[in-house]
Amino acid sequence: MQNTSDALENLIEEFSKLPQIGRKTAQRLAMYITRQPREEVLKFSSALIETKDKLRFCSVCCNITENEICRICDSPQRSSKVICIVEEPQDVFAIEKTNEFKGKYHVLHGIISPLDGIGPNDIRIRELLLRLGRDNGNAVEELILALNPTVEGETTILYLSKLIKPLEIKITRIARGIPIGSDLEFADEVTLAKALEGRVVV
Amino acid sequence: MQNTSDALENLIEEFSKLPQIGRKTAQRLAMYITRQPREEVLKFSSALIETKDKLRFCSVCCNITENEICRICDSPQRSSKVICIVEEPQDVFAIEKTNEFKGKYHVLHGIISPLDGIGPNDIRIRELLLRLGRDNGNAVEELILALNPTVEGETTILYLSKLIKPLEIKITRIARGIPIGSDLEFADEVTLAKALEGRVVV
Repeated sequence: MQNTSDALENLIEEFSKLPQIGRKTAQRLAMYITRQPREEVLKFSSALIETKDKLRFCSVCCNITENEICRICDSPQRSSKVICIVEEPQDVFAIEKTNEFKGKYHVLHGIISPLDGIGPNDIRIRELLLRLGRDNGNAVEELILALNPTVEGETTILYLSKLIKPLEIKITRIARGIPIGSDLEFADEVTLAKALEGRVVV
Repeated sequence: MQNTSDALENLIEEFSKLPQIGRKTAQRLAMYITRQPREEVLKFSSALIETKDKLRFCSVCCNITENEICRICDSPQRSSKVICIVEEPQDVFAIEKTNEFKGKYHVLHGIISPLDGIGPNDIRIRELLLRLGRDNGNAVEELILALNPTVEGETTILYLSKLIKPLEIKITRIARGIPIGSDLEFADEVTLAKALEGRVVV
């Protein structure tokens, strides 16, 4: 295919590198960029590099932040007694949107996955232990494991619960069950079995 | 939702402005950016603004290019006797990929759509007429209308064919019919009717 511009071809390639963006979508996005006013494109262009330059990991919870300590860890409105452990910063967004959780977080930046060669030392478990060791005397009462219900999630939950048991902190995991608005008929049998197992008194 | 970084929030918003990118995808893309090495993000960032700065419209066919005249218009291997008229630069990509067309193009940058307030003067029809007036004595023998088979496409085809008739240039349109690999059973009746109408001798 003879493209009409190296710069455009280059931009298409850059868009194609993004996750779940194929060649066709990349073309559409690049064409969209060519139609935008220069100042709009400049804003996008600087947002990219600014994100990269400003972001760092919170020294307490390992979530991404622009400061030494993130807004959630720094907030006096949030309880330090409950720490919710998640896989990725996106999961913090997702839980924050529920407006239900008023504790703090710990972001593992990955999950134990022996098949992918990711062991306990490749994710932020050491930081979690240091944090618990530091805070435990005064604060942490419960660790909520909010990991994805996958094989890797289960492995990580198993590993963490064994590791943390000696610290005598209550460890919980988020419920597995039928999603709101869906239909029992269409639930897979593993989910349904977990929903039955996790039944609660009404 | 309390986000942990203004720079990140800003990047998510920039990604959300792209066509067919929702908030969730924008979040995923922005998170992907935070995980990339700085030089990769810098490449993406400069590709954006470079595309915007370098691109212009070919003075002959109105396709996007980095030069006064695009590579296709400038190529001695391409015949000037056949001009394929398309709606957008993407359509040039699509036709080039077939490797079947060895003529030149004309990009209208839109389609006549009275409902959206887009008339003949809003798209590059004037440029086409100027080009035909300039070249006609020596070259153009056929205009292929490769517009989308929509109401707007039909309107534009009708308008162009009336407009160009006095110039006595052969005007054709690409075939409408059953797509390769699909099933008659699932074709809509309009497509099937057009396929019957456009039947060819084997």
